[in-house]
Amino acid sequence: MSLSLYDASVPVFTRGLTVSTLLDKAEAHAAGSGAALSTSVEARLAPDMLTLAGQVQRASDTAKFGAARLTGTQAPSFADDETTFDQLRERCAKTIAYLGTVAPETFAGSETRIVTFGGWANASTLRGDRYLFQFALPTFFDVTTAYDILQHEGVPVGKCDYLGRYEGADA
Amino acid sequence: MSLSLYDASVPVFTRGLTVSTLLDKAEAHAAGSGAALSTSVEARLAPDMLTLAGQVQRASDTAKFGAARLTGTQAPSFADDETTFDQLRERCAKTIAYLGTVAPETFAGSETRIVTFGGWANASTLRGDRYLFQFALPTFFDVTTAYDILQHEGVPVGKCDYLGRYEGADA
Repeated sequence: MSLSLYDASVPVFTRGLTVSTLLDKAEAHAAGSGAALSTSVEARLAPDMLTLAGQVQRASDTAKFGAARLTGTQAPSFADDETTFDQLRERCAKTIAYLGTVAPETFAGSETRIVTFGGWANASTLRGDRYLFQFALPTFFDVTTAYDILQHEGVPVGKCDYLGRYEGADA
Repeated sequence: MSLSLYDASVPVFTRGLTVSTLLDKAEAHAAGSGAALSTSVEARLAPDMLTLAGQVQRASDTAKFGAARLTGTQAPSFADDETTFDQLRERCAKTIAYLGTVAPETFAGSETRIVTFGGWANASTLRGDRYLFQFALPTFFDVTTAYDILQHEGVPVGKCDYLGRYEGADA
């Protein structure tokens, strides 16, 4: 079988964005503890780090821009104005829906496509494969930081929440 | 060009394990603040999460076992007894050195190789490509949690420390 950058990106992003199920637990935890839900959405690990909402927004951006840049297409624009759990779940859902429209065959040649992007100090153009493996995937793991924020806040989440469930084994 | 699971694993793991450069900053920060270095190595985000040392050990494990399982070879055994920054850096260096011995051609057929592993609730066998993209890569981003711990401890690290430097652009 042949492997493509599609396999290494769209399904990984889609799975990671099931972080929205973590948000269910965070909301229930905040509600149960009497904390304001808005406080929970704005939780962060350090003053100069993004909030939970910010981590989810950036993970969404990395996913949608990753797919769009690798295929030379346009990603949908989102306003980055989510302030509630419902809105963050909707952001994840919209991103997953967009990823579902990106066909595997549109990744043909993406390994060698030159990708231009901002947000890194010393490089704004990379070959597609390097863009995905050296920038987009490590950056996407803002979803890990979202998980870390919830852990730090005492939300009862575990590794299986983070990984998502795999439906059955292969052998 | 054809893409292989090698491209999606060994270089990603190797780059991620440059988390050892973050350890330099963490050590300097702890020394400057008068904190015990051992306390810094044992920092964690929540009582039921792994310490900084534990995150580095697990990232090392995911990297070495990932490469070994995908190629059907044996990974080196490490004792998990690191308690100092020097030892954690050495752990990263040993892991990177091992990854350097895993030749790209040994990944031939790894996409469809059935991989057996522990540590996940509902699946211990997966096809190689799913093992890498659904388990090993997301799990490897314990390096993100290591970074998050340092941020939470007030260590002055930023995204470029996390990503590592890319040496020059492609276009």
